[in-house]
Amino acid sequence: MLVGGREYRTIWPTADGSAVEIIDQTRLPHEFVTVQLTVWEDAERAIRDMQVRGAPLIGVTAAYGLYLAARTNPAAEPFRLAADRLRSARPTAVNLMAAVDRVMARVADIDETALADEIGRVAAAMADEDVRACRAIGAHGLSLIRDAAERRGEDEPVQILTHCNAGALATVDRGTATSPIYEAHEAGIPLHVWVDETRPRGQGARLTAWELGQHGIRHTVIVDGAAGHVMQRGMVDLCITGTDRTTAGGDVCNKIGTYHVALAAADNSVPFYAAVPSTSIDWRMSDGVSEIEIEQRAREEVSRITGRTPDGRMESVDILPDESSVANFAFDVTPARLVTGLITERGVAAATRAGLEALFPEAARR
Amino acid sequence: MLVGGREYRTIWPTADGSAVEIIDQTRLPHEFVTVQLTVWEDAERAIRDMQVRGAPLIGVTAAYGLYLAARTNPAAEPFRLAADRLRSARPTAVNLMAAVDRVMARVADIDETALADEIGRVAAAMADEDVRACRAIGAHGLSLIRDAAERRGEDEPVQILTHCNAGALATVDRGTATSPIYEAHEAGIPLHVWVDETRPRGQGARLTAWELGQHGIRHTVIVDGAAGHVMQRGMVDLCITGTDRTTAGGDVCNKIGTYHVALAAADNSVPFYAAVPSTSIDWRMSDGVSEIEIEQRAREEVSRITGRTPDGRMESVDILPDESSVANFAFDVTPARLVTGLITERGVAAATRAGLEALFPEAARR
Repeated sequence: MLVGGREYRTIWPTADGSAVEIIDQTRLPHEFVTVQLTVWEDAERAIRDMQVRGAPLIGVTAAYGLYLAARTNPAAEPFRLAADRLRSARPTAVNLMAAVDRVMARVADIDETALADEIGRVAAAMADEDVRACRAIGAHGLSLIRDAAERRGEDEPVQILTHCNAGALATVDRGTATSPIYEAHEAGIPLHVWVDETRPRGQGARLTAWELGQHGIRHTVIVDGAAGHVMQRGMVDLCITGTDRTTAGGDVCNKIGTYHVALAAADNSVPFYAAVPSTSIDWRMSDGVSEIEIEQRAREEVSRITGRTPDGRMESVDILPDESSVANFAFDVTPARLVTGLITERGVAAATRAGLEALFPEAARR
Repeated sequence: MLVGGREYRTIWPTADGSAVEIIDQTRLPHEFVTVQLTVWEDAERAIRDMQVRGAPLIGVTAAYGLYLAARTNPAAEPFRLAADRLRSARPTAVNLMAAVDRVMARVADIDETALADEIGRVAAAMADEDVRACRAIGAHGLSLIRDAAERRGEDEPVQILTHCNAGALATVDRGTATSPIYEAHEAGIPLHVWVDETRPRGQGARLTAWELGQHGIRHTVIVDGAAGHVMQRGMVDLCITGTDRTTAGGDVCNKIGTYHVALAAADNSVPFYAAVPSTSIDWRMSDGVSEIEIEQRAREEVSRITGRTPDGRMESVDILPDESSVANFAFDVTPARLVTGLITERGVAAATRAGLEALFPEAARR
């Protein structure tokens, strides 16, 4: 991703291998700050405090956390403790657990002296793999944007709406939902992106808008309630969102508010796509509405908002009556019937079991 | 409405008639402060700075502003100037203009010495009329809540979802969408209200939640994106919102985000009602989507949030990249096909021209 005109990933080892650097996403969009992680506890804290977020990036950060643990103390007991702590740094992040388990399986028979180097290689491979999957999603999504550009006519920008941040900042680079947007921009297709603010944490307003701005892509932030309106008035050609988990039947679990976007898209005949790396497909689940339990998060994410004061300080303000209850559902489920297609790294699948299994036959055989 | 256990209206003349008092709604929910308006410029400022808001309350405030103008200087020229300034205190408030015009028509032939007294009577009558309309809406809406209570079973609370503030604070008392809720609460029907935060200005989180809390009505604030989720999970029996303008065909123009609520209600077979005082019906308009122009408001409503710091100061914070564009559509249009019924002061109408004209035959004859 571009930041100030320079290419970055969201996580990378320093040249001498003594540390791992990340972008502190809690400081965005007001400040771009990178942070060095030198011990595994730094990686745990970065995940827990959401300096890094987004399922793919969390997984890679945990892998690099194990690398740091092995560098500092590769003995079995402390290393095992680090793995346990990293695995539980965020309660519901499936990628996090999968990444830790994958590293642990790969190094089960490795000598302590070779442990750090081997984990470093595994973490780097995971990072590269994520970038490849995101780029493949971008290539497949690009053809959808090309089609929309042809329908729209040459001079008018293609209008894309997205929700939350399934951007480079949620991955190692390029993002999932944003990857087709970056591809199209680089291919010279004129674009404009409607960015849903995405309450409560505002990942659209704070992160997606910042990312797109750094790439020079025209975009407009709207409150979440306005997505339907811009679709109703003919101002959107297609919607692309990310997903936290997609069932084998094509139900898309994603940031709260995604279901509204899909409903409005269907009501206005606007295609609605989710960008779905195959790692986020839950092949054991079929009906997302009845099977996926929705995480409820802290009241403060809704009641308290952090931003920059006019004189440049960061400050948090409360906006609710102290006595009022708050429910903070983190995700919702968009039923497959509202989903036009799933953009995977192997192509665009229909949001059905048959559609997904056609692209991932190995899953069908499991 | 109850505030600290005491009955209030949102606007009232002082006992000696020398001033008019309002609740400063910009200080809610953190502070309950009343303000005395003593000259018409105070009323103009109160409307412009949104110390009072909500179409019915703005209209009554303008009428009382004319009362103050007549008290201070009833001569034709300054009085006419005050009327012009009050009429344009908010750009798109139809009620505001209608209220000023109504007062001006009533006092066209009145002697200067009797002007203030007469306007005071007209303003008081308008306030009482608004309360009567709201109470009638409450009575008709109560029967819908009673029906929901019977379906739900005796011990479980009826679950109602509302968006924005169409509450007592938007009117002189009782509110439109909230009036059936207050009636049901007073009738002993157990209730729980889901309150949409309603970005960008947060009238749900700041005002509706506060109002309901003052009445001891159980409620839970959710972000706007969560309305569909709670409906999908069977946690809502009916939705009731207000309206800024409803067309003769039953299309409901209301706060941005209302369309999403109606879409999610339809998708989950939850009844969706709008509380519609007949003063907000635009009989000249039929198709709201093509005919109603949607006001766009300032960027800062989206990009800057005001609240209370942990140490008790009021502070504003910016949450967006400075370079990002913002579009701030104030309202949206919910097509009549998504509206189960319109709760008017004369009964619940189908959201069709025939339905509305059956209750308001005088409009059909116009």
